[in-house]
Amino acid sequence: MSEDTTVTAAMLAIGDELLSGRTKDKNIGHLADMLTLAGIDLREVRIVADDEADIAAALNALRDRYDYVFTSGGIGPTHDDITADAIGKAFGLPVIHDEKAMRLLGDMYARRGIEFNEARQRMARMPEGSRHIDNPVSTAPGFVIGNVYVMAGVPNIFQAMLDGVLPQLRSGTRMQSRSVPCPFGEGDIGEPLAAIQRANPDTIIGSYPKFNGQSYSTDIVIRAREVDVLDRVETAVREMVARVAAGKK
Amino acid sequence: MSEDTTVTAAMLAIGDELLSGRTKDKNIGHLADMLTLAGIDLREVRIVADDEADIAAALNALRDRYDYVFTSGGIGPTHDDITADAIGKAFGLPVIHDEKAMRLLGDMYARRGIEFNEARQRMARMPEGSRHIDNPVSTAPGFVIGNVYVMAGVPNIFQAMLDGVLPQLRSGTRMQSRSVPCPFGEGDIGEPLAAIQRANPDTIIGSYPKFNGQSYSTDIVIRAREVDVLDRVETAVREMVARVAAGKK
Repeated sequence: MSEDTTVTAAMLAIGDELLSGRTKDKNIGHLADMLTLAGIDLREVRIVADDEADIAAALNALRDRYDYVFTSGGIGPTHDDITADAIGKAFGLPVIHDEKAMRLLGDMYARRGIEFNEARQRMARMPEGSRHIDNPVSTAPGFVIGNVYVMAGVPNIFQAMLDGVLPQLRSGTRMQSRSVPCPFGEGDIGEPLAAIQRANPDTIIGSYPKFNGQSYSTDIVIRAREVDVLDRVETAVREMVARVAAGKK
Repeated sequence: MSEDTTVTAAMLAIGDELLSGRTKDKNIGHLADMLTLAGIDLREVRIVADDEADIAAALNALRDRYDYVFTSGGIGPTHDDITADAIGKAFGLPVIHDEKAMRLLGDMYARRGIEFNEARQRMARMPEGSRHIDNPVSTAPGFVIGNVYVMAGVPNIFQAMLDGVLPQLRSGTRMQSRSVPCPFGEGDIGEPLAAIQRANPDTIIGSYPKFNGQSYSTDIVIRAREVDVLDRVETAVREMVARVAAGKK
């Protein structure tokens, strides 16, 4: 078997509206799902306001630490869309009206008979040297600079951009998971489950309590990159649950 | 009128399951809504994994910068519930089995005829000197240490704990908002709206595009702490929208 590789990522969601509660983020959960499927570990998420210094500081912290950073929001035509400027600042790069983006947007507005005014031209701005991320929904592109993928905040556009980006990424050995249902609460299985985790440091074992209004039960989730490790630990967890059940009789 | 005060907050959501996509966070949006109502500005959110060093580092960054920090997750009875230890580490405080929490939990399990075992006793652990946050749902308390409020990740428990906490917080002059519907897309109003924002630095003006499948429209949201400022800027925005409409005839 080839050597395991780990590829890490972070997300930076940008926008006052996420912090005021006006908009409920839908992109974090979607990115988490898609990266898990792609074998990329999402390790950290930050949500920051439309503030250039805050965006740049968070971006620099994340891009140094993780293989990929994905951003959402702040690339529209209005004054509060400052993501391109903040990212230019973080990279120390000038932000320009990208020639290819100007052409794409100019053509699209010309076809629709709409003025390609200064506000709309803002959507062509990106740090010098960026590559485009296609926007099949509404034309205005996202961009890639270094290891940072800058995408729209509107969920259907974010998702469409991400679909285009994912095949370009280096992906790791996919983390696989097994779920073992357990009819007892965490308090009943906490100690033996911890013992299994200690004995199997090459897995990540999580337990997720559920309450049906009457009693607690638990989903035990085992995550690992190797199938034989998963098999071994799943067996240990199922035997442990059976022992706890026997002890309750 | 009394002087405006600003009270700031951050949230730290803790849990591998949020980053793998297994669980979709519901607490961030709820906290955002409740803090906005309370006149407290949520300025930053971070989501980190069940990793002691990562939790402690994020917590120290946030608690130095904001008036309040609210955490969710990682205070249950299993081995992956390490929030109390990580917070103890961040504060340089020993983590103890809190006497009052041991009594509360011990009494509850005794009433139910359930063994108060080592795993369940984990839920009584908190940094020395912490105050309790009541848990009316399932007894195991959250805790407050310094400016950090440590709460459960299960949404109905997080919400119940927050309901108990909010009346204890210092609240700022409440940010108020006005929403002006605009039948045009952001590209049409971007420039005049930016001019209004520049002329009114004591407001935060956001614009939120909507697409009905045929055409774009925009919600323009003006936020300020003073009613007369809101009145003035709302009038300016409505006049601007009317001018744009007249220009399209």
